[in-house]
Amino acid sequence: MFISFEGIDGSGKSTQARRLAQALNARGTETLLTREPGGSEGAEQIRRLLVEGRGERWSPETELLLFTAARRDHVERLIRPGLDRGAWIVTDRFADSSRVYQGVARADLRHLVEELHRLTICIEPDRTFLIDIDPTVALARGQARGGAEDRFEGLGLDFQHRLRAGFLALAAECPDRIRIIDGRGSEDEIAARVLEALE
Amino acid sequence: MFISFEGIDGSGKSTQARRLAQALNARGTETLLTREPGGSEGAEQIRRLLVEGRGERWSPETELLLFTAARRDHVERLIRPGLDRGAWIVTDRFADSSRVYQGVARADLRHLVEELHRLTICIEPDRTFLIDIDPTVALARGQARGGAEDRFEGLGLDFQHRLRAGFLALAAECPDRIRIIDGRGSEDEIAARVLEALE
Ligand SMILES: Nc1ncnc2c1ncn2[C@@H]1O[C@H](COP(=O)(O)OP(=O)(O)OP(=O)(O)O)[C@@H](O)[C@H]1O
Ligand SMILES: Nc1ncnc2c1ncn2[C@@H]1O[C@H](COP(=O)(O)OP(=O)(O)OP(=O)(O)O)[C@@H](O)[C@H]1O
Ligand SMILES: [Mg+2]
Ligand SMILES: [Mg+2]
Repeated sequence: MFISFEGIDGSGKSTQARRLAQALNARGTETLLTREPGGSEGAEQIRRLLVEGRGERWSPETELLLFTAARRDHVERLIRPGLDRGAWIVTDRFADSSRVYQGVARADLRHLVEELHRLTICIEPDRTFLIDIDPTVALARGQARGGAEDRFEGLGLDFQHRLRAGFLALAAECPDRIRIIDGRGSEDEIAARVLEALE
Repeated sequence: MFISFEGIDGSGKSTQARRLAQALNARGTETLLTREPGGSEGAEQIRRLLVEGRGERWSPETELLLFTAARRDHVERLIRPGLDRGAWIVTDRFADSSRVYQGVARADLRHLVEELHRLTICIEPDRTFLIDIDPTVALARGQARGGAEDRFEGLGLDFQHRLRAGFLALAAECPDRIRIIDGRGSEDEIAARVLEALE
């Protein structure tokens, strides 16, 4: 079972991915918690090129190629081997982030995203939880957190609104795979919604 | 005019690219000397991931995606703007290196190389000089040079033989664009062969 969490910056993906992995491991289901960009040694090195620096550091096309390179490494070295030995994978972001960030919000590259995915990635999660929340709330949460990894947050509130619309449109395209989770309320409340949606 | 130099490791590409750019600039033709992977600020950062470390650090597919990302940045930020303002470009390696390294010698990914090129690069040099030399001679030259950028040299002499065969096959595929330059002899002799082939 391969599960991804998606959503705009600061929506609570990392928090909820960690909680779900903990809950599954507590039940005795071996579960690996991972994230994108990153998750494997090489992909974490590519991550630094992607999440640091100015928003315009890379064009959308170059950025997409770097995300795809990181994803390929992550799939080859962590996700596939994990699934092959029967573990569950819970990942904080996967290909839907490229579909929405590079495919809709930063640029209109959805066709290129799908072509690169078809050529080099192929695998899709069995289930995706989209944590949906108002960008103003999420941005405030993200800013509270701080840190140097703010290249996308730096693109502003308008950008986060385009992201949210892009994720909701994608969920409508793939209703079987992508489940929308209301991101308002406490961590406990949201974690309960995720577990309920998983049953 | 967009010119590339290609060939196996240590064949003399960097030496001859520099000499040709100098000769053209001395004639009053504004010429930019550049290289791959790298050539632009972002691409040079990606370069470090590619040329350092163990040979098996990246799978052939991930490696190809990283080369393509670096090439996209290089084309967008240096090659296209240079050509647009009328300068000549002389580059030490370009897409043919991917066709041969990832397409033939490291893996059988020629189809993927061409698809990624078609989707994200498109541009091709007007003229390519393939410096052809025996791998034993080239490897000795490269080892004399030293340095940390030896990830491909580390793959051994057999690998260099596969590269040479791949480059010669590619030259046979594209006889109008790719000119084979005998890489034996002194730097001066080879530089004279390149200038003669360019006229
Ligand atoms: N339900 C919640 N209520 C209030 N704060 C929360 C909630 N969930 C997470 N947070 C806090 O909001 C911030 C963002 O959460 P988190 O890091 O999980 O989001 P994210 O979607 O992973 O963000 P990013 O996309 O930037 O990685 C963190 O500081 C986190 O502790
Ligand atoms: N004609 C020549 N005769 C002898 N030595 C040479 C000649 N041309 C270059 N060299 C030396 O051989 C080494 C490799 O040359 P160069 O760096 O130009 O090759 P290269 O094709 O760019 O190699 P790499 O693929 O590793 O970048 C250098 O030390 C260079 O000074
Ligand atoms: Mg996070
Ligand atoms: Mg060189």
